[in-house]
Amino acid sequence: MKKESGYYAWLGEVRQKREFARVTDASLPPDAYRITGGGGAVTIASSDAAGAMYGEFAAGAQIRLGVEPATLDVTSVPAAKYRVLNHWDNMDGTVERGYAGRSLFFRNSELCYDAERIEDYARLLASVGINGICLNNVNLRDDSRRLITDEKLPQLAELAAIFRKYHVRLIIAVDFAAPKTVGGLSTSDPLDGGVIAWWRDTAARVYGYIPDLLGFLVKADSEFQSGPAALGRTQADGANVLAGALAPYGGTVFWRCFVYNCLQDWRDTVTDRPKAAYDHFFPLDGTFADNVVLQVKVGPVDFQVYEPLSPLLGALKNTRRGLELQVTQEYTGQQIDLYATAIPWERALSSHVSETRTLSELFGGGIDTVVGVSNAGDDENWTGNPLAQANLYAFGRLAWNPRASAGDILRDWSRLTFGNASDAAEPIADMLLQSTDVYAKYNAPLGIGWMVTPGHHYGVNIDGYEFSKWGTYHRAAHDALGVDRTSRGTGLTAQYDPWVAAQFEDARTCPEELLLFFHRLPYTFRLKGGVPLIQHIYDTHFDGADGVARFIETWDALRGKVPDELHSCVAERLNRQLENAVEWRDIVNTYFHRLTGIPDEKGRQIWL
Amino acid sequence: MKKESGYYAWLGEVRQKREFARVTDASLPPDAYRITGGGGAVTIASSDAAGAMYGEFAAGAQIRLGVEPATLDVTSVPAAKYRVLNHWDNMDGTVERGYAGRSLFFRNSELCYDAERIEDYARLLASVGINGICLNNVNLRDDSRRLITDEKLPQLAELAAIFRKYHVRLIIAVDFAAPKTVGGLSTSDPLDGGVIAWWRDTAARVYGYIPDLLGFLVKADSEFQSGPAALGRTQADGANVLAGALAPYGGTVFWRCFVYNCLQDWRDTVTDRPKAAYDHFFPLDGTFADNVVLQVKVGPVDFQVYEPLSPLLGALKNTRRGLELQVTQEYTGQQIDLYATAIPWERALSSHVSETRTLSELFGGGIDTVVGVSNAGDDENWTGNPLAQANLYAFGRLAWNPRASAGDILRDWSRLTFGNASDAAEPIADMLLQSTDVYAKYNAPLGIGWMVTPGHHYGVNIDGYEFSKWGTYHRAAHDALGVDRTSRGTGLTAQYDPWVAAQFEDARTCPEELLLFFHRLPYTFRLKGGVPLIQHIYDTHFDGADGVARFIETWDALRGKVPDELHSCVAERLNRQLENAVEWRDIVNTYFHRLTGIPDEKGRQIWL
Repeated sequence: MKKESGYYAWLGEVRQKREFARVTDASLPPDAYRITGGGGAVTIASSDAAGAMYGEFAAGAQIRLGVEPATLDVTSVPAAKYRVLNHWDNMDGTVERGYAGRSLFFRNSELCYDAERIEDYARLLASVGINGICLNNVNLRDDSRRLITDEKLPQLAELAAIFRKYHVRLIIAVDFAAPKTVGGLSTSDPLDGGVIAWWRDTAARVYGYIPDLLGFLVKADSEFQSGPAALGRTQADGANVLAGALAPYGGTVFWRCFVYNCLQDWRDTVTDRPKAAYDHFFPLDGTFADNVVLQVKVGPVDFQVYEPLSPLLGALKNTRRGLELQVTQEYTGQQIDLYATAIPWERALSSHVSETRTLSELFGGGIDTVVGVSNAGDDENWTGNPLAQANLYAFGRLAWNPRASAGDILRDWSRLTFGNASDAAEPIADMLLQSTDVYAKYNAPLGIGWMVTPGHHYGVNIDGYEFSKWGTYHRAAHDALGVDRTSRGTGLTAQYDPWVAAQFEDARTCPEELLLFFHRLPYTFRLKGGVPLIQHIYDTHFDGADGVARFIETWDALRGKVPDELHSCVAERLNRQLENAVEWRDIVNTYFHRLTGIPDEKGRQIWL
Repeated sequence: MKKESGYYAWLGEVRQKREFARVTDASLPPDAYRITGGGGAVTIASSDAAGAMYGEFAAGAQIRLGVEPATLDVTSVPAAKYRVLNHWDNMDGTVERGYAGRSLFFRNSELCYDAERIEDYARLLASVGINGICLNNVNLRDDSRRLITDEKLPQLAELAAIFRKYHVRLIIAVDFAAPKTVGGLSTSDPLDGGVIAWWRDTAARVYGYIPDLLGFLVKADSEFQSGPAALGRTQADGANVLAGALAPYGGTVFWRCFVYNCLQDWRDTVTDRPKAAYDHFFPLDGTFADNVVLQVKVGPVDFQVYEPLSPLLGALKNTRRGLELQVTQEYTGQQIDLYATAIPWERALSSHVSETRTLSELFGGGIDTVVGVSNAGDDENWTGNPLAQANLYAFGRLAWNPRASAGDILRDWSRLTFGNASDAAEPIADMLLQSTDVYAKYNAPLGIGWMVTPGHHYGVNIDGYEFSKWGTYHRAAHDALGVDRTSRGTGLTAQYDPWVAAQFEDARTCPEELLLFFHRLPYTFRLKGGVPLIQHIYDTHFDGADGVARFIETWDALRGKVPDELHSCVAERLNRQLENAVEWRDIVNTYFHRLTGIPDEKGRQIWL
């Protein structure tokens, strides 16, 4: 076993326990801490044990980053109450959209784990403030439906105990139809007395085993999962029956808003998938129980490179919201290609939901939960590509403080991981900072998204989703490209605050990276710098592949400055990324050159 | 078990044994027969037992088709010596490109079969003259490599005994690398003494169990199968070592010519997949042993709707050839869509290999073997879609007599199956006769091929193979479409006889259904009837889908005139075919309308 060497990253530092003085300060909110370094000792003040722990991790990190202990003077309050990871782990050990080996928790329909490894994982998560975790996939299968039964709960409770040491509370993903599929009732109608009683009994049973369970997570009426709509009930009817059952125990229902028609006809140009979540949930604002959190993906489609904010995040006024981010790189390189998610998260958090407010400013108000879909698996280095650990780290940091700078976070991660004085820390942080721009350049242009291999979602396939049922179309023709989602088109813009909508409505004010998300434009349309759209497509695709080549040069120069095993693991992935980027570059350029007949102004190689 | 009812088709008739008088006529060639009906009795003359059997089946069929026994006067000599089926059955029970259930022969890495069912199958094949069968897939896996060992041969010999009753001889598909993978040698170099001895010993062992084995079938150096090329040896070196081992037993090596680069770069416009078989094998003409048959697919690519003949079929002069046809409908509707393979086979057999000769005229000369990739599985009705039985029947008929008319064959099949006096026989035969034109109309236009879903090969995906490694590209751009394979392009035409090449070279003389196989043309190019290419694409795609709708009307009218179970089985498939045809129509039309901007002259619905 070379387990220790495999961990590589910031965990190595986290495990070096330091001793600090602790004091109680009841005026501090839950989880918050104050670090003071005067008087020859570092002191952590908090109102609770979790806050003391977070303070110790934070103080240790500051010292490792070179801050003189005597000068420490930090007070920190988390912006979100729940900072949660969702694992999409199946009980057969596979991980949906997982790129780091198999499940840390399951095998062969059983809980199955290395307790020491789980404790390391819990410590890792706690070190960046994560305090909730759902282990099982929201897409439920027969075995995972039974996690809420006496058959599985004793083992789950043992796992909960490990996480509890680090103030990380479990969540269980449940099947909305569990009264039927698990309980054997004839219905799962949320207004049925038997169903209400069944959920109440189930909550009692689950909390008997895991008294601090954070709650239940539900994907309902979505991609073939059951839900209240099929029974003629509302999403609120559905969520509230579970909420009623969990309320006596202080539990929360995390109810996903990823509800849309996944059997659309490509010929249908009226239905527009990004409108779906708002259409389903906005009319129900204010009708959800107090212990329901609506879990909303950050963008209105599905974790593409460029999307606007989901309009639902700003539109809901009387409903608690959770912001769902994807730490695992489903559409963004699958931990082969380098992609620092901190950058687009920072962009999203600083995006306006109205003239006067950014998304980050809703934290502590309507948004009290941040959810990340985990990128960790049982690979020795946790995340497949060790540099993808930066994304897990950044998720915790931004969930705690959504106004933190992505640059600071990535530089901190790099210094904590490779050493504060390491020659490698700065170049690696720079690569990470450039990574998302490079990736976006060789991918689908300007917010149009979805030019990926169907199913698998790695690699380019321009028409892969163009004639399918998933509601994701680019509608590229010889003269124009994109979907008009303004008031002249599908009307998505009307779901936004008027000030925001006005930016999106006009191609001259629309953020450039969202131009083809909101507008159908001729290839001759001139971007802000005066470059025609088609030339921008060519330019960015050549630049993107060149950027990967530069990463390889940078990385080659770091040989000997990072552990050899880590170096070769990343080098191998960068070479695959280059192949991928070259395919994207050439196929996108050829596709649009064939379609338009417009040559590259700079005469570079575009294949026939 | 409703086994009998499931068989539906001509087997029911085949099983009604009739008694005829038999005489020996040593002047008749092997397998041949003469039927005479004079003098109050029907008499079958033949020189061998197989001929007598074929004569009895033929006489029985004639009588069932309403021929007055007294008037019978038929002498029939098979044009091909070997009339062979290849099953692509894996020993786990799956069937590669199988659309009729699971394997009739294998399960769980073992031989596993219903002896009565196998006897029915043998009788069915014999009734149309088939006299050889390979049970295992040419793509070998570990278990099927071991069919030539003492572990598997005893069971295989039992199966051979059933087929032997009907003069059907077994073939075994073997791994070229078997000396290593099965024999444990360090090489499979065909010039190595140990390898030569190993094959000799293996032949002795196999023939010890199955004395009338027809031979070995080999897919070498193709799609990741091992072969002599990797060892620096020629295809002839490879084939001849097996031929030497089989010669003492009268065995034959069937050596496939499906050798090409399946890792092509789409950017490479010089390499041209249809040239590959000729390039690999033509230089070796005359160097193969006498008991080697080169098994050549009918077209130079892979069983697309429209392809020219493989140039190799006409070019080889001093090498025995086997013509490989695909009975199973891999690219032609997968036994969901109706597609009577007799029609394209008739077209191929009557195509010229030179000014003076058609392909059918090579039979009995260079071509002495016809191979069909079987469409049968363990579905009760043998072929999934019961009407696809017509393809198995037609294969036997054309292998015996390549100048037979597809229309006669399909009408005979329909009358034998549904009854000579049935109201259903004629309309069903008409549907079959129209089926390939209808299918071709809604598929990839004019010989361009390959606009199918990758991997699976059912349904439309225009760019599915466009940027892949398989060497199959349409290169559609806004102004032109197709690959120039003339002397001005990749030069494929030079592989044909000059008279044939001259037809292909000129777009005005090239057979219209091959226009985009051989030429890159502007969408405004006018076809023979004066219709522009783009309008032809629109017209045929609307027509194709309309044709399927007409099939459904015809079929609806046949309710009650065919067995109910058969009716509903076909009806369900015709409805799926209509969905498929509508997707093809709309996606092809939309794709080319987007690409060209040219509207349909007739103003029909083309989606945006």
